[in-house]
Amino acid sequence: MAQLRQLHLGAFLRPTTIHTGAWRYPGAFPDANFNFAHLKRFAQTLERGRFDAFFMADHLAVLNMPVEALKRSHTATSFDPLTLLPALATATERLGLIATASTTFEQPYLVARRFASLDHLSGGRAGWNIVTTSNPDAALNFGLEEHMEHDERYRRGREFFDVVTGLWDSWADDAFLRDTQSGVFFDPDKLHVLNHKGPYFSVRGPLNIARPIQGWPVIVQAGASEAGRQLAAETAEVIFGATSSIEEGRRFYADIKARMAKLGRAPDSLKILPGAFVVIGRTEEEAQEKRARLDSLVHAESGIASLSIALGHDASLFDPDAPLPEIPQTNDSQSGRERVLRLAAREGLTVRQLAQRLGGYAGLAMVGTPRAIADQMEEWLTTEASDGFNVMFSHVPDGIDEFVDLVVPELQRRGIFRRDYAGSTLRDHLGLKRPENRFFRDAVTA
Amino acid sequence: MAQLRQLHLGAFLRPTTIHTGAWRYPGAFPDANFNFAHLKRFAQTLERGRFDAFFMADHLAVLNMPVEALKRSHTATSFDPLTLLPALATATERLGLIATASTTFEQPYLVARRFASLDHLSGGRAGWNIVTTSNPDAALNFGLEEHMEHDERYRRGREFFDVVTGLWDSWADDAFLRDTQSGVFFDPDKLHVLNHKGPYFSVRGPLNIARPIQGWPVIVQAGASEAGRQLAAETAEVIFGATSSIEEGRRFYADIKARMAKLGRAPDSLKILPGAFVVIGRTEEEAQEKRARLDSLVHAESGIASLSIALGHDASLFDPDAPLPEIPQTNDSQSGRERVLRLAAREGLTVRQLAQRLGGYAGLAMVGTPRAIADQMEEWLTTEASDGFNVMFSHVPDGIDEFVDLVVPELQRRGIFRRDYAGSTLRDHLGLKRPENRFFRDAVTA
Repeated sequence: MAQLRQLHLGAFLRPTTIHTGAWRYPGAFPDANFNFAHLKRFAQTLERGRFDAFFMADHLAVLNMPVEALKRSHTATSFDPLTLLPALATATERLGLIATASTTFEQPYLVARRFASLDHLSGGRAGWNIVTTSNPDAALNFGLEEHMEHDERYRRGREFFDVVTGLWDSWADDAFLRDTQSGVFFDPDKLHVLNHKGPYFSVRGPLNIARPIQGWPVIVQAGASEAGRQLAAETAEVIFGATSSIEEGRRFYADIKARMAKLGRAPDSLKILPGAFVVIGRTEEEAQEKRARLDSLVHAESGIASLSIALGHDASLFDPDAPLPEIPQTNDSQSGRERVLRLAAREGLTVRQLAQRLGGYAGLAMVGTPRAIADQMEEWLTTEASDGFNVMFSHVPDGIDEFVDLVVPELQRRGIFRRDYAGSTLRDHLGLKRPENRFFRDAVTA
Repeated sequence: MAQLRQLHLGAFLRPTTIHTGAWRYPGAFPDANFNFAHLKRFAQTLERGRFDAFFMADHLAVLNMPVEALKRSHTATSFDPLTLLPALATATERLGLIATASTTFEQPYLVARRFASLDHLSGGRAGWNIVTTSNPDAALNFGLEEHMEHDERYRRGREFFDVVTGLWDSWADDAFLRDTQSGVFFDPDKLHVLNHKGPYFSVRGPLNIARPIQGWPVIVQAGASEAGRQLAAETAEVIFGATSSIEEGRRFYADIKARMAKLGRAPDSLKILPGAFVVIGRTEEEAQEKRARLDSLVHAESGIASLSIALGHDASLFDPDAPLPEIPQTNDSQSGRERVLRLAAREGLTVRQLAQRLGGYAGLAMVGTPRAIADQMEEWLTTEASDGFNVMFSHVPDGIDEFVDLVVPELQRRGIFRRDYAGSTLRDHLGLKRPENRFFRDAVTA
C-alpha cells in the first residue's frame, strides 16, 4: 500500500502561546516563556509526539503597544532564541530546532556561524526562520530612526541569504583531515573564500566553522506580501504563514507552488505549514467553553482597540454587553470589518466578547474534539491547502500534553503522521534534500 | 585563623589549547575544539576541580596567517562561543561561563539580550569578555575595508558597554508580578526606557528580558594598551591578560589597582588573572620533556616566520640544527629580540627549537611538578602579581585531568583554593558584588 501524504507539525513556542489571556488560564504556567525547566519539558513532550520542530518567533523590542495593554503581556521577558535552542538541543535527540533571525538587524557572518554551530551541536536539527523585520519599535533599538522601506528590506534579505548560504559552503565536507602524522589539519584545496561584494554586504569569508551537518540548516520563512512570497518561492524550504481559512490556504498553496514551478523548483522541496491555534476538548462543547474561558481572560479594553481598528469605528462607545450595533459604512478597508461582522453573527458574540476574541487570537483556529481537529488537519492536507501546521497551543502545559496525547495518536491511526522519526535531522523529518555545496560538487555528502 | 588570600582560576578553552602543536600530542583529541562530547567532559572536569570559569576567546576570521601555517591550525573550525555555552550550561551546575563578544562588529541590543539569556539559563554564571577586536581579517568579514582606528575602537567599546549595562538595568528585580487574578504581568513603574543617544549608538530599550540573575554578567577584559588598561580600570571585574613574567605581573597589577583607586573603585572589585600555559610532569624532567615534545610537533617553517619577526632578521638563512648565530644589530624594536636571545641562551635551544617554541607558545609558562607549579602560583598570589590565572592547558584531555587531579589538590592543601563552591553564581566564586540597578536603587536585590 502506498504511503499516504504525510502531515508535518511545527510547534509555535515563542511565545509559548499566541493567546494573550492564556497565561491566566487555570493550571497554566504564567512564567512559561521564561522558565527553562518548563521549556525543556515542552520540548521533550513534543519529541514524544514526534513533532518535526520546535519553532521560536522573535521580536526585538518591548514597546510595541500602549503600556495599559503591554503590562498584561506575558511576552515582555523571554529568552533569546539562539541562546535557548542550544540548551534545548542537549535535552532532546530528534526534535528540529528553528530560530528566527533578522536580516535587517544582524550581520550575516555571525548569523551563519550561529546557525552552523547549532546545527553541529544538535546533530543536524537547526532551522533558520528568515525575517526581514518590519517592526518600527525594533528599529529604534538598532539606531534606525526611520524603518527601512519594505522592498529594500527584501532586497537586503535576499543578499543576506546569499551571503549566509555562501559562507555555509566555505568548506567541503571532507576538508578536515586532522592528520596527526603529517600535522595537516585541513586541506586548503577544500576551503573556498567567498569574497562577496554586493550593494548591502561585503564579506570575505571563509566561515570559521565546518559546513553544517545538514549542508544548510533548513530555511524557513513567513512571507505573505508579493515580495515575501517571491523570496519564499526562491529560497524557502518551509513557510510558516498566517492563513485564515482553508480556501485562502488553497489559494496561497497553489500560488507558491506555481511560483516554484516557474523557477524550476520541485514542489515538494518546500513545505507550507500555516499557523493553527488549537483548543482541544473531550466534547465539542467543552472545547468551545475552553475557548470562551480563554477569551474571557483577555483585558477587554485592550481588545476594544483592536476591534475599533477592524471596524473603522470607535467601539468603546458601544454597550459592551450588547450585540454589535449597526455601523455606518466608512471609507476604510472593508475586508477586516466584514470578517468581524461575520464572526459576530456566526457566534452571537457581544461587543466585549468580540473585543476579547480579537485581543486574544483571531486567526485560524481549530476548536473541538481530537477527532474533529484531526478531520480538519486531514482535509487541509488532502486538498492541498497545506503540508501540515505550525501548531499554536491554547495554553501550556495542558494544551501541549493534550495535543500529543490525544490529537497525535488520532493522526497516526489515520496513517498521515509518523509513529516514529525515520531519520535524525530536521531535513530527514521534512523530507528535504541536503543542499549540494555550490563550490565543491564532488564532495562526499552525508 | 584568618582565611588566606584565595586564588581564582579560569580555564582558557577556545581554543582548547593555545599550543599550536598540541592537537598532535600522543593521546590528545585532535578534534577537541569542535566536539561537543569532549567539551562537555572538559567542563565537567573543571567543575569537579572547582574552577571559577570556562573561558572562550573568539576570533571572527580564518585567514589570519599564510595558508601553509593555517592548514596546520586546529582552530579553523570551532563553535560560536554564545551557542556552545548555553549547551554547556545544561551539563554543569556551578562553573562560570565566559564568552567573548566584540564591540566592533556586534549590536549592543543583541549582545545585552544574549548574555542576559545565558545568565538566566545558567542560574547566574555568565561573563562577558569585552573585546574591541583589532583583527583586520575579521573586519573584512563585516564590510570594513579599513579597520577602525585603535582609540576609536575603544571609544566605541566604552559606549557599547554603557548601552549594554543600561539595557540590563531595564527592569527592576521585582518588575514581573504575573498576577493571574488582576491580569497584570508586570508593573510599568518598574520598567525603564534607556533612550540612549550617543556618537556611536542610538538605542531606545527596554531590553525584552528580565534583569540578569547576577544583575550584570561579570565584565571581563584583556586590555594591555594605555586605552585598554584605562577601560579595564573603569569597567572590568576580571582581567585575562598576557603577562610574561612575575615582575611584569607586579607592575601591571600595581598599575591597574592604582588606576582603580583614582576612580574610587575598591581594589578587590577587579581580579587580575594572567594567562598561564601549564605543563605538568611527575618530575621536573618529565615536564620539560613533555614541553620539548609538544614544541617538536610545531611545523618548524611556520615558527621560522615568527622567529624572523622577533629577530628582525631572516631566520630561514640559519642552520636549523645549530645554535642561533651572532646577529648584527638592526634599528627594529629590541625588546622582542632580547627576549629571544635570552631564551636561546637559557635553554640552549637550536634555531629550529627556538622557532618551534615561538610557533607553539612563547608566553608565560609554568612547566614542572604539581608542587612546583603550585609554588609559582602561590608566589604570584602572595606577592600581588595576580589574583589567579587563566590556565591554558598543555593538551587535552590529559592536561586538564592532570591539573584537576594533581595541581588543584596541592593548591587546596595550601589553603589558597576552594575545596567546594561557596555560592552558585560566577560573582559568588569571584567574590564580586551584584551591581545595583542604576534606575531602581530601592529594588530588592537577590
